[in-house]
Amino acid sequence: MNAADLRLPVDVPSTALFTDRYELTMLQAALRAGTADRRSVFEVFTRRLPEGRRYGVVGGTGRVLDAVENFRFDSGVLDFLADRRIVDEPTLAWLADYRFRGDIWGYPEGEVYFPGSPVLRVEGTFAEAVLLETVILSILNHDSAVAAAASRMAVAAGDRPLIEMGARRTHELAAVAAARAAYVGGFASTSDLAAGFRYNIPTVGTSAHAFTLLHDSERDAFRAQVDSLGGSTTLLVDTYDVTEAVRMAVEIAGPELGAVRIDSGDLLLLAHRVRQQLDELGAAKTKIVVTSDLDEYAIASLAAAPVDAYGVGTQLVTGSGHPTCSMVYKLVARADAAGPDAPLRPVAKKSMGGKTSIGGRKWAARRPDADGVAEAEVVGTGPVPAELADRQLLVQLVRGGETVAREPLDAARDRHRAALAGLPMSAIQLSRGEAVLPTEYI
Amino acid sequence: MNAADLRLPVDVPSTALFTDRYELTMLQAALRAGTADRRSVFEVFTRRLPEGRRYGVVGGTGRVLDAVENFRFDSGVLDFLADRRIVDEPTLAWLADYRFRGDIWGYPEGEVYFPGSPVLRVEGTFAEAVLLETVILSILNHDSAVAAAASRMAVAAGDRPLIEMGARRTHELAAVAAARAAYVGGFASTSDLAAGFRYNIPTVGTSAHAFTLLHDSERDAFRAQVDSLGGSTTLLVDTYDVTEAVRMAVEIAGPELGAVRIDSGDLLLLAHRVRQQLDELGAAKTKIVVTSDLDEYAIASLAAAPVDAYGVGTQLVTGSGHPTCSMVYKLVARADAAGPDAPLRPVAKKSMGGKTSIGGRKWAARRPDADGVAEAEVVGTGPVPAELADRQLLVQLVRGGETVAREPLDAARDRHRAALAGLPMSAIQLSRGEAVLPTEYI
Repeated sequence: MNAADLRLPVDVPSTALFTDRYELTMLQAALRAGTADRRSVFEVFTRRLPEGRRYGVVGGTGRVLDAVENFRFDSGVLDFLADRRIVDEPTLAWLADYRFRGDIWGYPEGEVYFPGSPVLRVEGTFAEAVLLETVILSILNHDSAVAAAASRMAVAAGDRPLIEMGARRTHELAAVAAARAAYVGGFASTSDLAAGFRYNIPTVGTSAHAFTLLHDSERDAFRAQVDSLGGSTTLLVDTYDVTEAVRMAVEIAGPELGAVRIDSGDLLLLAHRVRQQLDELGAAKTKIVVTSDLDEYAIASLAAAPVDAYGVGTQLVTGSGHPTCSMVYKLVARADAAGPDAPLRPVAKKSMGGKTSIGGRKWAARRPDADGVAEAEVVGTGPVPAELADRQLLVQLVRGGETVAREPLDAARDRHRAALAGLPMSAIQLSRGEAVLPTEYI
Repeated sequence: MNAADLRLPVDVPSTALFTDRYELTMLQAALRAGTADRRSVFEVFTRRLPEGRRYGVVGGTGRVLDAVENFRFDSGVLDFLADRRIVDEPTLAWLADYRFRGDIWGYPEGEVYFPGSPVLRVEGTFAEAVLLETVILSILNHDSAVAAAASRMAVAAGDRPLIEMGARRTHELAAVAAARAAYVGGFASTSDLAAGFRYNIPTVGTSAHAFTLLHDSERDAFRAQVDSLGGSTTLLVDTYDVTEAVRMAVEIAGPELGAVRIDSGDLLLLAHRVRQQLDELGAAKTKIVVTSDLDEYAIASLAAAPVDAYGVGTQLVTGSGHPTCSMVYKLVARADAAGPDAPLRPVAKKSMGGKTSIGGRKWAARRPDADGVAEAEVVGTGPVPAELADRQLLVQLVRGGETVAREPLDAARDRHRAALAGLPMSAIQLSRGEAVLPTEYI
């Protein structure tokens, strides 16, 4: 594919270009130095959670597996790299045959994590593993940030469903990934059709203020909507006067009206008033949906209000104050020579400045207390203690280049709910605090 | 295309699915009500700048034009909409022929904006214009947020080049758009190969700590890099001991060494120390690149340090605290009947809650004072005053469905520099403050 042929504003021919240039220049230098084939272990982890957060949520693992499978250098990509003289001829030849043939282990999607948790481990030659740094971090840092925000919102919402509506507030494809991560974190549905198409997430949505304003009166607009979408639709009642709109909505749709949506004003006050009015009009089953710059705190503050569903946009897709995680991809062990049998040696940056990390290929386990509640995230480089053997967190995702752990999105969503239930109760407090589990290194 | 055929983790068949479901249900209801063909004017604007910011930067206009051209409902999309019963048969038939045939006007990309500035105006039938809401807002809200952060960083950096390195901190395709927006805002280059491929932005990058750790010694790593990439490369000097690394770097590459990169520690202190050391080693032309969680304030604090270039990641792609703009897409005028000659009537939401807007199709102009410095953003709905006729900000981007204002990215970049130069000096203060221009409504 030539750049001139591109049509979609987001077209790229493969995931191989979601890569920082230095990965290819490192590859070139390592190929020439004869070090490219040293067996290497890279790990993804974060040194800290976002300030005040008590747990992180692994989001994007399934997308990582797709990205690794599609990480190929076709002729369009190779032509680009050659034209711009990004790498030399031997490197281009090596890239032409590239596919990842190593192993990937990781915390399964939806699992929670803490500072130092090895959420993903990539093993292969240095050459094949170093290339995946950027695309893996892009996906995990973005998706995990959204999943964590979604999880907190879902905790705040309790049994009430959450609707993801943030597409307009983020990049058009980040929006699709955000809807997916929100679903993992506990959201019920999305307004984003691309997310419905791509990931089979339930989509919802009925009308905006523009629809009311298009018509000669709110009455005409409501009638048009009910005529076309039926009485179970959701009518938006805050374009002019909410009380008058609710009255008219029930008059037109009947007491079987599905729901009304309130998108502005004092939601707490309005929800109570509208509920009372709906009940008085005989529309006791008509639901109330609220949408208007909600975050987990606003959702929690509406817990006692007669609200049936929340629509969340901006704060969801921007991670509720933390739009990215600080996951890094670090070489933690490598062999001294090429070949599968050369022993691995732990390595780590040692300079000043706080960016140090712990060398060695790691396992991780979550240790329960006597009541079965998690009490520590245990990370180690040696043998796994017997009592933690069946508490290990990393599962194999890719074996010899083949994906072995593909799963439906609902599995990640269910796993997240279970993981959260296994944490101490303080995990679900919205207030700022420390990570609910300490990380212990063995 | 069937969802099962998708390979890339981001595959979508066209931009038509970057759409909230309610746009299609509104379309269906309007088609049935006979109101879908009423001529309508939608405008994109923001009610406020991010807190403390003095100006906004229009980013993404070029991507909007691509997205509108690719907004087509092919059979794969139509099958999806039919299978999920998202819209009815008449609506599917209407969508099959869809292409936007209206007009789009807007602030050209790179221009600055203020609260109330009509940064984009879409005119057509209600049906054809309502569908574009989400994709237009996604692009403008994301790209403008990054462009604004980039602009502030470029102001802080002065003549020193800025390198965009944030791909790993955001969604893999948001990263490509972010690199593009950063370039518009004044960045010189990007680490992201996809951005180089897609938008022809210069790419840079040499090596990471992993490359040093791969080798048996830092000396081996530096030699491998210089052997392959030449003496003009940039060596990363903070894996172990910076002073020793700098000494060795010059020993291996010679005094012609291109640059050293410092990625951790006290950058101010280290830059001074490394500069002195390089000068003493005869490497007076060797540059110093710093990278480590920089934002505009950190860049400004290094203004007096001997730094030659800045690499910026997280804070750039997350809009330096403001990852999205609050742009909205509102119906501001529409006809009472179908057809091109029915007169337009201003419309606006009138409910409580602060989400009101001003009806009517708007023009905008930037009024200069006697010295030619901008003093007000003037927005009006009536005739344009003669003295502002040649100061108007909106240009036609699409005429009758045809894009008429495509331009190279450098044009947007140059325009941004000129727009900033036309503002009062206080625009380039990094401190928090009000918008530097008041918005006046006529």
